[in-house]
Amino acid sequence: MIKRVNHIAIAVPDLELAAETYRRLGVTVSEPQVLPEHGVRVVFLEFENVKLELIETYGEKSPVASFMRKNPSGGIHHVCFDVEDLQSTSETLKDAGIRVLGDGPPKIGAHGNPVLFAHPADLFGVLTEFEEPR
Amino acid sequence: MIKRVNHIAIAVPDLELAAETYRRLGVTVSEPQVLPEHGVRVVFLEFENVKLELIETYGEKSPVASFMRKNPSGGIHHVCFDVEDLQSTSETLKDAGIRVLGDGPPKIGAHGNPVLFAHPADLFGVLTEFEEPR
Repeated sequence: MIKRVNHIAIAVPDLELAAETYRRLGVTVSEPQVLPEHGVRVVFLEFENVKLELIETYGEKSPVASFMRKNPSGGIHHVCFDVEDLQSTSETLKDAGIRVLGDGPPKIGAHGNPVLFAHPADLFGVLTEFEEPR
Repeated sequence: MIKRVNHIAIAVPDLELAAETYRRLGVTVSEPQVLPEHGVRVVFLEFENVKLELIETYGEKSPVASFMRKNPSGGIHHVCFDVEDLQSTSETLKDAGIRVLGDGPPKIGAHGNPVLFAHPADLFGVLTEFEEPR
């Protein structure tokens, strides 16, 4: 069911400082993008095989705010896997006793594709996103 | 300098349970290996583009033990990048004000290649390993 890791997201307190730090390490870093509907500003770190995203809280109701209160210097926030079909993913998760966050159908994620999140308590402390690439 | 993500390591309290959970999600999971000199038991989750490792404490002096005390249900433990040359990586890190853990030359890591670790406080809360593939 899961073929690829889509990205790993690292929450940081200062996006420009973090972007500059990774540039100094020779990583190709995108320009910052604001994603108001997701409550984050983001830059992408480009590697040959997988993307890392640096995310910073944005706005009043950022979903990353509580994580940053617990981890003020930052930390790995979530892992995202590509899946072929979110509906069957949702059923497989439920069959395995893994709770899907939120209610109802998958939402549109930061990349414009449908996504769902599994409860970190059911996956060994790891907030896990599943994305169905178009 | 950094071309690829080598792996992401997730520390778990029960390796067999975690392996079985990922198998139920359709992930190809290796047999467990004990790495006594690294204080962990490990399984590899195989994806098309990058490896995830599930690690469990092993023995009296596991380097993962303090992480598990703070995160008893588990969590993402570290990210590992491939680099071409660890010596120049070490110098680049120092020039960027990022502390290298331990003293002296790189050690041999869990894959038999030389590795070094950067201090998580200097990389936004993320314990970061650098590995020089042979």
